Amino acid sequence: MNYKYSVFLANVGTANDRYCAEYAKPFTFARLIERAASIPQLSGVDLVATPALVAVAPEIRRQLADAKLKTVSIALDIFTEPKWKQGSFSSRDRKVREAAMDHARQVVGLLRSFGSDLLTIWPGQDGFDYLFQSDYLAERAHFCECVTRLAEEFPKIRIALEYKPREPRTHSYVQNAGTALLTAHMTGRKNVGVALDLGHSLMAYENPADVVAMCKIHGDKLFHVHINDNFMFADDDLIAGSVRTLEYLEFYYWLNRTGYSGWITIDQFPYREDGRDACAESAEWLGYFETLIKTFGLARINQVIKTKNAIAASRMMRELLKTRIP
Amino acid sequence: MNYKYSVFLANVGTANDRYCAEYAKPFTFARLIERAASIPQLSGVDLVATPALVAVAPEIRRQLADAKLKTVSIALDIFTEPKWKQGSFSSRDRKVREAAMDHARQVVGLLRSFGSDLLTIWPGQDGFDYLFQSDYLAERAHFCECVTRLAEEFPKIRIALEYKPREPRTHSYVQNAGTALLTAHMTGRKNVGVALDLGHSLMAYENPADVVAMCKIHGDKLFHVHINDNFMFADDDLIAGSVRTLEYLEFYYWLNRTGYSGWITIDQFPYREDGRDACAESAEWLGYFETLIKTFGLARINQVIKTKNAIAASRMMRELLKTRIP
Amino acid sequence: MNYKYSVFLANVGTANDRYCAEYAKPFTFARLIERAASIPQLSGVDLVATPALVAVAPEIRRQLADAKLKTVSIALDIFTEPKWKQGSFSSRDRKVREAAMDHARQVVGLLRSFGSDLLTIWPGQDGFDYLFQSDYLAERAHFCECVTRLAEEFPKIRIALEYKPREPRTHSYVQNAGTALLTAHMTGRKNVGVALDLGHSLMAYENPADVVAMCKIHGDKLFHVHINDNFMFADDDLIAGSVRTLEYLEFYYWLNRTGYSGWITIDQFPYREDGRDACAESAEWLGYFETLIKTFGLARINQVIKTKNAIAASRMMRELLKTRIP
Amino acid sequence: MNYKYSVFLANVGTANDRYCAEYAKPFTFARLIERAASIPQLSGVDLVATPALVAVAPEIRRQLADAKLKTVSIALDIFTEPKWKQGSFSSRDRKVREAAMDHARQVVGLLRSFGSDLLTIWPGQDGFDYLFQSDYLAERAHFCECVTRLAEEFPKIRIALEYKPREPRTHSYVQNAGTALLTAHMTGRKNVGVALDLGHSLMAYENPADVVAMCKIHGDKLFHVHINDNFMFADDDLIAGSVRTLEYLEFYYWLNRTGYSGWITIDQFPYREDGRDACAESAEWLGYFETLIKTFGLARINQVIKTKNAIAASRMMRELLKTRIP
Repeated sequence: MNYKYSVFLANVGTANDRYCAEYAKPFTFARLIERAASIPQLSGVDLVATPALVAVAPEIRRQLADAKLKTVSIALDIFTEPKWKQGSFSSRDRKVREAAMDHARQVVGLLRSFGSDLLTIWPGQDGFDYLFQSDYLAERAHFCECVTRLAEEFPKIRIALEYKPREPRTHSYVQNAGTALLTAHMTGRKNVGVALDLGHSLMAYENPADVVAMCKIHGDKLFHVHINDNFMFADDDLIAGSVRTLEYLEFYYWLNRTGYSGWITIDQFPYREDGRDACAESAEWLGYFETLIKTFGLARINQVIKTKNAIAASRMMRELLKTRIP
Repeated sequence: MNYKYSVFLANVGTANDRYCAEYAKPFTFARLIERAASIPQLSGVDLVATPALVAVAPEIRRQLADAKLKTVSIALDIFTEPKWKQGSFSSRDRKVREAAMDHARQVVGLLRSFGSDLLTIWPGQDGFDYLFQSDYLAERAHFCECVTRLAEEFPKIRIALEYKPREPRTHSYVQNAGTALLTAHMTGRKNVGVALDLGHSLMAYENPADVVAMCKIHGDKLFHVHINDNFMFADDDLIAGSVRTLEYLEFYYWLNRTGYSGWITIDQFPYREDGRDACAESAEWLGYFETLIKTFGLARINQVIKTKNAIAASRMMRELLKTRIP
Repeated sequence: MNYKYSVFLANVGTANDRYCAEYAKPFTFARLIERAASIPQLSGVDLVATPALVAVAPEIRRQLADAKLKTVSIALDIFTEPKWKQGSFSSRDRKVREAAMDHARQVVGLLRSFGSDLLTIWPGQDGFDYLFQSDYLAERAHFCECVTRLAEEFPKIRIALEYKPREPRTHSYVQNAGTALLTAHMTGRKNVGVALDLGHSLMAYENPADVVAMCKIHGDKLFHVHINDNFMFADDDLIAGSVRTLEYLEFYYWLNRTGYSGWITIDQFPYREDGRDACAESAEWLGYFETLIKTFGLARINQVIKTKNAIAASRMMRELLKTRIP
Repeated sequence: MNYKYSVFLANVGTANDRYCAEYAKPFTFARLIERAASIPQLSGVDLVATPALVAVAPEIRRQLADAKLKTVSIALDIFTEPKWKQGSFSSRDRKVREAAMDHARQVVGLLRSFGSDLLTIWPGQDGFDYLFQSDYLAERAHFCECVTRLAEEFPKIRIALEYKPREPRTHSYVQNAGTALLTAHMTGRKNVGVALDLGHSLMAYENPADVVAMCKIHGDKLFHVHINDNFMFADDDLIAGSVRTLEYLEFYYWLNRTGYSGWITIDQFPYREDGRDACAESAEWLGYFETLIKTFGLARINQVIKTKNAIAASRMMRELLKTRIP
């Protein structure tokens, strides 16, 4: 495969939902790394800077090196602790905002020590639940200002903003691709871009393929890609490609077409499945899509999309699925 | 107020989501009961038969009696333990189905000891996540058969089926009011009916007021009501009435119109709020709605809905909101 | 192919939306029949009993015979004329209900003269737009009563109720599979069943494959199937299979599994495409799905769905797509 | 009332959907103007530059003057004619793009003659229906380039981009507030802003109040407001405020808070109601909301939203609804 694949380290483990605290016994970091390394398509991992991880960072770094897994990106942990429950960078409380800034600085340090320059920010708690609960003006301004400051402090770090329409808040501030790109632009900094999570994009009634093009045209802003699947209403975090097959194929065409050279990171919540096996299945699907598009050839697709002809597109999708791959 | 109000005992406590394991420190059962009792509109509680609760049932019963709180209903716990992760009554594994039956029998015993005859079944794990994962025919048949057997074993217990379109599964078997009523009918037993959770109903793109009428017309099947609010895409479990105000008002009209004499149970997940205060807010909204409808009078509403005139309905809704209440 | 395919006659023509009255020039009935006949997979047509069609029914019957196209079903026209704007069988106005009954009787006569026994009822205007606009109890009772009377008057005619969650009303009375099956059961008549429109089912957040099983288990009630595709939020009426590929494959498995022996009718709105070509594309997709499932074999699928194993299901879906067909 | 209210002239008439071509007999322009003028809260109208209107523009201008109705804005007609069916400014066909530019120039001329400087662009046909149908990169670039050219040609005309997630296409290019603001920014021209249609915003899972703040913070870009209501899944175009009451109230708070000084234009599709009466109902709701917020006072709301306290917000919403207005 030509694309570089990674997985969120925790995803090869276990997941809980709000009803069941433990569908299965959790794994140690060492076991998680072994499990990730056992998926042949993967050459990297993404991490979330939880207190538990930060506490043993050097050990993890060594184990990843031993397993020949690169650290692709580290995501801020601004969503697992109660202190962020009313927002991080958008909080009305200056102390909370500064705590988030300090955490980000710490994670940048971590990033460097892990040999990566890609910081992922998913502001999951930055939003609101109720009407008349929030000062959108002040909170959005705080958010934008903090990201701008971070981008200025660390001009060599690329900051990927991960958008999502809702959950855990009923409404997120950075809710879709348009808003993420707008926010990136408002910072005025080149090192702020977008992390496209395919599941979040589908929840926002976007076509992820179109988002790849949007990011390209508005400043080559696609910094990172997260992969999972869903039925469009919730962040189901299913095996990638097991639901939205054709959307995934078109997405791969657009990655090729726009020359995306970043990583593709599996980001799932396998509640009832073995985490390692569920992620391995995603890797299989992604390899299948990548190969199908490559074998079919970009040129034939280019020809069809020039015409805007739906009949031709429909016929081509069927041919694409019928393509025999090596 | 004329309606009888209850709360799920756990709801006056704390809630977690899949990201944050503990937004706040949990409370003991004793404290939860005190907190529920402190909400003046409430005269009952609903319980979930978790292992933790079952273990101290006699103590809880005594504390509830001391607090003058009636036990309205007990819900089966077929969703918090890993053993139900692929379904309870619909499981392909006979042992799991029988375990669910045994649990139900145990809860019926509990119910009796708590002086209630209303069993709530929310089959949250009975459904599927992936395409091509399930034998819908066999699993739906198992589900229906188990509920029928339960209804036959305990003819004096009323069984309320609580439907929901999704979560924690991507698709639930008992997904909406039509399917719940159909299932109730297929059992051929009078003691099987519906628990209408307003949030679940909104998620299913239903109008809860219409569901009250559906239940009435198809055999007086509205056995129980759960209350919370949301933005229609997810089970946000917000303070009741804080979002869908007009739907709630119409719902109260239909409760009155159909002579609903059961309980109304607050069922929320106050992640970031004090649980007791969030439930107290719901009670305030519900009292407001109940009083508004009563003050405005059913007769005026009857007159308008006879005409199917949207202009008249719109005008009346505004008048309803403007009604001065005592 | 083993399944019998049909098309709504008007669908090989043109379509308008609420903005653009005429995306293309309409065709005569004679031309529509020629166009339908030119799609090799089709051996039948479905009709809607519009005044324009009724006026020339004998001529159309002759032209269909010449074109060797069977009339699969005729749908009542209770949605294109202003007189039905507040409902047909559910109308509070007795005269409107009786007009709908008379129309139905006329269409039954038409059906017989066309050699079919399958009456399709899509109660598109039976529902409501506004809160507080409707007497759900009375209107649902009227609807159920009228359908029951029809079923009793014409015991040899099979009546297929086509459900849909919304549009043209914001809320339909017969809104999903559960409600359609419930309504069929409440009539107490064997000759009332369900017309499953895949697009409507996806809009209702159902899995159409599951609906096939639901219909089987609750009285073998799948009387008719309409085919089209969408992105789950609206009735996009796209080329079948061009979006929800895997859902369609699972649907074909369940048609096979339950021994469905009825027709599959293409029902699209090709606004911007040539209608004939868009329907021909659907026929191609459907043939592809039918062949894929047949070639892959039911037995392998049976094995997987017994296990409820998502990993196995995911792997199998990929193998299914990779299956080489003759 | 302090805000200036308008209505789309056609909205006081009749509407059709894709099933029923004529729910009621249409009105002449002269009658439409009389009908709009009969709604006391209105002091302006918005127009769509259809061929029928353009043909009699001088007459309409005179009649509006006689009726003392100001022309608030004219919207391009790039959605009612078949020539735009694959897009206007985003079309791959240079001739179509130039035809759209020429139409826009003509409408600017019209605007001036009607004494307005506000051009509304709703690119309803600019988007796509099928996967693999479109070259997003080229089409989005064309769109942006055309709008930029227009903005440069007419620096004194304010251009309001009206976004919408879907319909009539399954996916629109300018799909939500973030994308509209991003597009406005990418033109680099101050005279490009946003037309916020509340119904479109709800369809995009936005909170319109938040969008008012977003527009304020990102360059004071709220150029125009369209008003109607819906149940969040489709563009139901219902009487404003008859469904999302609390969202409307919060929206009015934010209009006040950000000092919005533009017009509020009613934009509905009253299929089954008298158009004039349905729009008059919206005007009544809007007056009610405006007065409620004014009477309650911004200061109390300011106090609550500073705290981000959901309990306080919930309580305040109830107090707001209970506020007695003069």
